[in-house]
Amino acid sequence: MRPIDDSPLSRDGKVLILAYDHGLEHGPVDFEDVPESADPERVFDVATHPAVTSLAVQKGVAEAYYPAYEEDVNLLAKVNGTSNLWMGEYDSAVNWSVEYADEVGADSVGFTLYGGSNHEVEMAEEFRDVQEAARDHDMPVVMWAYPRGQGVKNDTKSDVIAYAARQAMELGADIAKVKYPGSKAAMEHVVEMAGPTKVIMSGGSKRSDREFLESVEAVIDAGGAGLAVGRNIFQRENPEYILDALEEVIFEESSVDTALAAAEE
Amino acid sequence: MRPIDDSPLSRDGKVLILAYDHGLEHGPVDFEDVPESADPERVFDVATHPAVTSLAVQKGVAEAYYPAYEEDVNLLAKVNGTSNLWMGEYDSAVNWSVEYADEVGADSVGFTLYGGSNHEVEMAEEFRDVQEAARDHDMPVVMWAYPRGQGVKNDTKSDVIAYAARQAMELGADIAKVKYPGSKAAMEHVVEMAGPTKVIMSGGSKRSDREFLESVEAVIDAGGAGLAVGRNIFQRENPEYILDALEEVIFEESSVDTALAAAEE
Amino acid sequence: MRPIDDSPLSRDGKVLILAYDHGLEHGPVDFEDVPESADPERVFDVATHPAVTSLAVQKGVAEAYYPAYEEDVNLLAKVNGTSNLWMGEYDSAVNWSVEYADEVGADSVGFTLYGGSNHEVEMAEEFRDVQEAARDHDMPVVMWAYPRGQGVKNDTKSDVIAYAARQAMELGADIAKVKYPGSKAAMEHVVEMAGPTKVIMSGGSKRSDREFLESVEAVIDAGGAGLAVGRNIFQRENPEYILDALEEVIFEESSVDTALAAAEE
Amino acid sequence: MRPIDDSPLSRDGKVLILAYDHGLEHGPVDFEDVPESADPERVFDVATHPAVTSLAVQKGVAEAYYPAYEEDVNLLAKVNGTSNLWMGEYDSAVNWSVEYADEVGADSVGFTLYGGSNHEVEMAEEFRDVQEAARDHDMPVVMWAYPRGQGVKNDTKSDVIAYAARQAMELGADIAKVKYPGSKAAMEHVVEMAGPTKVIMSGGSKRSDREFLESVEAVIDAGGAGLAVGRNIFQRENPEYILDALEEVIFEESSVDTALAAAEE
Amino acid sequence: MRPIDDSPLSRDGKVLILAYDHGLEHGPVDFEDVPESADPERVFDVATHPAVTSLAVQKGVAEAYYPAYEEDVNLLAKVNGTSNLWMGEYDSAVNWSVEYADEVGADSVGFTLYGGSNHEVEMAEEFRDVQEAARDHDMPVVMWAYPRGQGVKNDTKSDVIAYAARQAMELGADIAKVKYPGSKAAMEHVVEMAGPTKVIMSGGSKRSDREFLESVEAVIDAGGAGLAVGRNIFQRENPEYILDALEEVIFEESSVDTALAAAEE
Repeated sequence: MRPIDDSPLSRDGKVLILAYDHGLEHGPVDFEDVPESADPERVFDVATHPAVTSLAVQKGVAEAYYPAYEEDVNLLAKVNGTSNLWMGEYDSAVNWSVEYADEVGADSVGFTLYGGSNHEVEMAEEFRDVQEAARDHDMPVVMWAYPRGQGVKNDTKSDVIAYAARQAMELGADIAKVKYPGSKAAMEHVVEMAGPTKVIMSGGSKRSDREFLESVEAVIDAGGAGLAVGRNIFQRENPEYILDALEEVIFEESSVDTALAAAEE
Repeated sequence: MRPIDDSPLSRDGKVLILAYDHGLEHGPVDFEDVPESADPERVFDVATHPAVTSLAVQKGVAEAYYPAYEEDVNLLAKVNGTSNLWMGEYDSAVNWSVEYADEVGADSVGFTLYGGSNHEVEMAEEFRDVQEAARDHDMPVVMWAYPRGQGVKNDTKSDVIAYAARQAMELGADIAKVKYPGSKAAMEHVVEMAGPTKVIMSGGSKRSDREFLESVEAVIDAGGAGLAVGRNIFQRENPEYILDALEEVIFEESSVDTALAAAEE
Repeated sequence: MRPIDDSPLSRDGKVLILAYDHGLEHGPVDFEDVPESADPERVFDVATHPAVTSLAVQKGVAEAYYPAYEEDVNLLAKVNGTSNLWMGEYDSAVNWSVEYADEVGADSVGFTLYGGSNHEVEMAEEFRDVQEAARDHDMPVVMWAYPRGQGVKNDTKSDVIAYAARQAMELGADIAKVKYPGSKAAMEHVVEMAGPTKVIMSGGSKRSDREFLESVEAVIDAGGAGLAVGRNIFQRENPEYILDALEEVIFEESSVDTALAAAEE
Repeated sequence: MRPIDDSPLSRDGKVLILAYDHGLEHGPVDFEDVPESADPERVFDVATHPAVTSLAVQKGVAEAYYPAYEEDVNLLAKVNGTSNLWMGEYDSAVNWSVEYADEVGADSVGFTLYGGSNHEVEMAEEFRDVQEAARDHDMPVVMWAYPRGQGVKNDTKSDVIAYAARQAMELGADIAKVKYPGSKAAMEHVVEMAGPTKVIMSGGSKRSDREFLESVEAVIDAGGAGLAVGRNIFQRENPEYILDALEEVIFEESSVDTALAAAEE
Repeated sequence: MRPIDDSPLSRDGKVLILAYDHGLEHGPVDFEDVPESADPERVFDVATHPAVTSLAVQKGVAEAYYPAYEEDVNLLAKVNGTSNLWMGEYDSAVNWSVEYADEVGADSVGFTLYGGSNHEVEMAEEFRDVQEAARDHDMPVVMWAYPRGQGVKNDTKSDVIAYAARQAMELGADIAKVKYPGSKAAMEHVVEMAGPTKVIMSGGSKRSDREFLESVEAVIDAGGAGLAVGRNIFQRENPEYILDALEEVIFEESSVDTALAAAEE
């Protein structure tokens, strides 16, 4: 782990990752409510907002769109991922070599580890290769730390989430992306277990803006570094509004009220 | 993904791939109706028609015949493929390294991915290696995007086909070869999901010329880039006739009537 | 595929491979009737007959005996093979690297592919490596094209044999060694399916000399390139007699009567 | 095996490894009783005590904290390890390459081998690579020699522990970390079986200080080289007290009474 | 296969391997009767007897003890081996690379192949790598040719042993170590099947000296090259006595009576 506060992945030590790999992980069904969100260009435009510290996409999306955005967007190469056309024991294909991610211009890499899956050992060894190659290329590493599979009865339990964050830290991730464990106190525990690894919350389900911002505020208050979010941003009619508010909550550590007021301006 | 409009794989951004790997995938039974179609030379001759943007064959066929045709035919190296002597869970052997395909003179590479198969993760990782090696050799990549296997109940459903096209794009294919999803509207959705990846229709079953051309016209109208076709071309007595007509429909965007008239000339 | 007519593997485009890997594939039981046939030296001596275009052996046999015969025998390195001490689903170990085969002095390589086995995909990928390494070393490649395993109900059926020959061609074998499909007409079909890949008959079971030569004559008449044979040659008291006759049938395209008469001289 | 008495891993031929990979192997639950023990910095501070000959941690912990302690702590890179989110047949992921461990500043490497697991063969081959790479980098190798899995009915039996120590020696470990076999006599047998490989006791469960020190004294008396211990040290309010006492018992070979008296000073 | 009569592995074409890997393969239980036999130094001392043409040990034993004996003992690196803590289908881990064995000073390598095991194909491919690397380093190769596993009903049957010896030869072993097939006649058949590969008898169970020497005499009379033996030598109070006698029987081809008389001197 190295200081990443000055890396392209964070800003003042805080992180807001716009994640956009739903087309691979879930398929077009995720775009049904807002069909134009299937268009990567729209999402790259959203990612130019200063609150977004990086945009996470798969290789094909990066190859096609990043050249036009490399001045304005920090690229997070999500190097593994799998369709859900098949639904067996959790696993994820490594679709992108770190070397080629670097060539495409990536600033950092992302990797999903399903702790508790029958494939955990194999995935951890793939993570080793990715993490060490990323060190060679000076790219920070984000782990999508998602316990799942036969060994995991409940992946929303606070202690499972804390374990995932700890695992991310011990294996050498700079940032652990985890589910929100349900309360600020639980998040504090998760953050504590991750030690020097920054913890960010996975965006989760749709709620009111206030409720959403309050959960982000709780993450920040708990010592978390921010948020990785997808549809809740890019499927809005006005993503700039919520990004303005998030910028207040995450980077200025403003209250939700202040943030909402600032966004209205 | 890189601009492939000027690559040997397309012409004015449109694509007509003549596919000829039936001998491996299905065996001699596919040649029974037209025995002379077992002769690769006959198919290479057909592929010299200006409407054909490339010919897709396995390694052995390319090694034996391509040297005599390299001036007149663009070679698409179909790098994986498997016999159906065995019929277990869908998988495909990588029979040809990209490096050697380049040595044989290939202009582009093709790869079958069975999304939804128990072998999807392994195949996706093989695709990664092929795709990145192809980038090194400046060869566009075509994915035969064919969801199949335990996880796939119906591979002709429009949303399964749209998912396959999206997967092709996210994994870095320049062209996705998919089944026709049944209607022009459904094809438009598929094309949209594939974004910058060109979508071409897999030739499918034999119909009347008019019906066949109408389906191609629908693909073009839906924003598709063209067609990959095999027996429906090379097993005809007069392939030139239908290729003339396809050239009109695909490259001139003529109506089916105009195309048929032009072909008669 | 490259022209192999001038390679050490063939003579005037015809092929007679003396195969001697029974000790590995079947064990000493194969030598019981003619105990002295267990001695490789005896078989190397037989292989010096001008009718034999190459001798196929495993690595250990080549290492020990080939140095004394390299002037008089063309070596075909049979690079895979397995004992039948175990009798599970068909598979074959790669026992010899192409690089080392070249070092030992091999002129060509041989590889068994069990199309239809549960291990077909893995074997095809091993074949890819062997075939491409052989190209690098300018060694022709012979495929023992033997459909076997769970997917194959009857490996003596003519269409299964034709499929195997086609598979050999599409994967890049220069020669396909197949079972005799039962008739000259069936053999013609097999030869046609293999296109530029030469087809040779696997020696099969013991018959009268006349019957044996007639089957070889049928192969030649059908356009086949010759024969791979083992015990039917090296377990005779007088192998020279039958080799003289085979030389007539294969290389001179003489009738069986002429061949038998010439051999008597 | 090479003389390691002068290596950073031992002092006068004796060894006290402070092990701190509980966060990965067992998860945050191990820190519950003493929450501040989740903080690696606290444990690095403890490891600066002169009695500690090295500190064993996973890659992520080393990357983040070792730079500040490299003058005062010897680093043992624990290169494999796995969460217990999943609880199938015993296996362990190789999370850290020896090359990168060397780069991070490791002085020695540690590897868990589950003899008797269905994964024993695979793990032994991974150990081979790690051990030989460690030789290249002049780093001693510690094996966590823990028979476990389907083949092992009772991993606390003295003869199972003796077998594990012998296996460690035959495979080339410099130090074998084993469970305490229950008595000094049994430990003598274990030490004898390990021959030139030093044997150290795994810390085990919590007891009174006197009982704990007596078991360490028995190890030393039996010819063992020392101890690897974790929570029993770093979860104390005053780790210095017990480390002072251990220093007496292990390095001065003092009696437990003398050691406890010295520690009180 | 190359002439090994002048190699460190044999003396006048005869072979006596002292094997000492019981600690790994069977565990300390093998040393129970003669506890001091657990000490490798004792066995290295025994191996300095001129009758011993080489000593077979695992990597860790060689690393620790060989430096002191390299003038007086020829080292056979036993590169694979596995504990019997687990007792599933026969397999063996490759614990030692040939490159490193060479570095440690090995003069030859040994490898166990379980023909007939479900792992036969995989083990044969590992043998390929070991054998070819050994050729590169000019080290002769000994195969422990031990049919075992699901496919093998009776591994003491003469024809199974003959098959194993043949397999060793065809795969490129210089020496095949096999069980004694029960009679001199059976051994003659085994030797004949192995052709240029030397056959040595595995020491087997304990008998009277006379019976033991008579079985060795039968091996020599049958054309075998000698013997690999372990406990029957190094667990004696006076190993020199039986080694003197073996020297007579193996290298002088003396009768058992002469040998026993010479040993008494």
